[in-house]
Amino acid sequence: MNNPSRILLGHGGGGRLSRGLIDEEIVSRFGDGPLKGLPDAASLELGSRRIVFSTDSFVVQPLLFPGGSIGHLAVHGTVNDIAVSGGKPAYLSLALILEEGLELDVLRRVLDDVRAAALEVGVKIVTGDTKVVSRGQCDGMYLNTAGIGTAIPGFELSPSRLEPGDVILASGTIGDHGMAVMAAREGLAVGQGLVSDTAPVIRLVEAAEPWAKDVHFMRDPTRGGLASVLNEAVEGRAVGVLLRETLIPYRREAAALSEVLGIDLLHVACEGRMLLLCRRSCSEQILSAWRALPQGQNAAIIGEVTKDAGRVVLETAIGGKRLVDVPQGELLPRIC
Amino acid sequence: MNNPSRILLGHGGGGRLSRGLIDEEIVSRFGDGPLKGLPDAASLELGSRRIVFSTDSFVVQPLLFPGGSIGHLAVHGTVNDIAVSGGKPAYLSLALILEEGLELDVLRRVLDDVRAAALEVGVKIVTGDTKVVSRGQCDGMYLNTAGIGTAIPGFELSPSRLEPGDVILASGTIGDHGMAVMAAREGLAVGQGLVSDTAPVIRLVEAAEPWAKDVHFMRDPTRGGLASVLNEAVEGRAVGVLLRETLIPYRREAAALSEVLGIDLLHVACEGRMLLLCRRSCSEQILSAWRALPQGQNAAIIGEVTKDAGRVVLETAIGGKRLVDVPQGELLPRIC
Repeated sequence: MNNPSRILLGHGGGGRLSRGLIDEEIVSRFGDGPLKGLPDAASLELGSRRIVFSTDSFVVQPLLFPGGSIGHLAVHGTVNDIAVSGGKPAYLSLALILEEGLELDVLRRVLDDVRAAALEVGVKIVTGDTKVVSRGQCDGMYLNTAGIGTAIPGFELSPSRLEPGDVILASGTIGDHGMAVMAAREGLAVGQGLVSDTAPVIRLVEAAEPWAKDVHFMRDPTRGGLASVLNEAVEGRAVGVLLRETLIPYRREAAALSEVLGIDLLHVACEGRMLLLCRRSCSEQILSAWRALPQGQNAAIIGEVTKDAGRVVLETAIGGKRLVDVPQGELLPRIC
Repeated sequence: MNNPSRILLGHGGGGRLSRGLIDEEIVSRFGDGPLKGLPDAASLELGSRRIVFSTDSFVVQPLLFPGGSIGHLAVHGTVNDIAVSGGKPAYLSLALILEEGLELDVLRRVLDDVRAAALEVGVKIVTGDTKVVSRGQCDGMYLNTAGIGTAIPGFELSPSRLEPGDVILASGTIGDHGMAVMAAREGLAVGQGLVSDTAPVIRLVEAAEPWAKDVHFMRDPTRGGLASVLNEAVEGRAVGVLLRETLIPYRREAAALSEVLGIDLLHVACEGRMLLLCRRSCSEQILSAWRALPQGQNAAIIGEVTKDAGRVVLETAIGGKRLVDVPQGELLPRIC
């Protein structure tokens, strides 16, 4: 796995290999500006205004899955990156790469989902592009969105602001999206309960706005899951994280499937959840505000920031402790 | 070809089939805002500021071709869309879809080209995304860029401003990019002269700025070529276009190859040229300004706007006239 001369599937997994590729090939070339530190979205000056700009490509397979489609993901993925970066999403681009032979009805269903998701968030699709490649040169369709938002005043978000004693909130059950897509792909019957969590998180961000100055960091745990987000946040810093296994909300069906597959749910992607790390003083208030929202019904305080420099530790149900590492390569290819 | 139930290659060709798909599936869902009229880039209010926003995906094959690579295209394609919409490009996103097995050296070469092209234009790559798909699920790599620019004051561009008597300028030889990629793909030896024209056009736009109020419309003739751009501009309007074949600049090698292949160069993509339609009063001045630039050495006045409603007509070298139509489907797949 060391210094491969070709791209491996694991380079896209959101884990250690991904990070190595990004650091060596992207940050080395483009990292002298807003890309530095690899935020989910770039914060940019434009005239007197601060804007937030982000992009994601979507290659999920299957295109339609329980609880959503690549169309929902294409909207939620980008607007959520903007939201957790403290931006209010306003405009989206939409670029399609279509495979010759794709059924038009599938395209229509996906575009309907894009439209519905954009309307729900209140973003406008304002520009786009369509390419077609021959049979066998893509897998049905790939989408890309880029989004522009305006910075919400008050938020000043950076993992460098994390302090021991800060509290970690999760907005809902963890790993549903990854498990639902996996089940759909493998044709596993896992009951009605296992559906993707794909959804916008902007209402959750807005609900935390009254305490914005005491919110230190927010992220949506997508590829690489909660484990990757938290490890990236504390890597090379004087702080660490302690998670309490009994407090982390999981859906029963997701937990059962992950056990069968031997996958740690902390490594599994959500597409409609967010983590928020804030001072203890406002944590219960944000939790209450979240629980009052449909998107935050299962919100919970799941742990805290520690002095255990650079380490993410899980206190297990029986009181033991284990290190929560970043996945090396690719657990679940093409999950988003 | 009527009402197919599946995506055809021609849906991506920039011709009539493409336009039908976009009208029926995209404009019908998202066309009530800035997408209306399908400009190359969206013009958006953001606070007190007007910004220009555009996106393109790139699926060119081969990835490296005479005169450039998919990396150059990914920068030039998007910044040129912004430039011909009267915007000064400032920021770019960069999203990669990589195929498992892609040689890292190819990726590095492409990213070097992205970097060089961005530096030349003065845009910053500020956010990005990397996905990896399994072997056989994409063809090496696909790129997407989205770009944000600030509106250059003075330009007010729309094909609705075209008036009979307006003059049409082309900034250089037509069809070089498409022919160079075609030659590379087919392994044709066509001499040193046939290289892609991939280049930024922002200097050409800036050179026309002193006469901005008399510039009515600008576009870069990419997919579907000069024929598609001009047909789209006059479609359904009270004006038409007369092109003079003897005035259109072609590179000898491109003309020879197009003749061999039976392809009309008016249908072939450029990636570093632009068309500008303006009042006659300033046309010679803009032409002189262009010719003083390295990008505009072969610039020429190639025709004029007429009262021949909705029609693009070519006056041939021997004095005959023929209608210049839009290609139906796909002449040159994966040219950009």
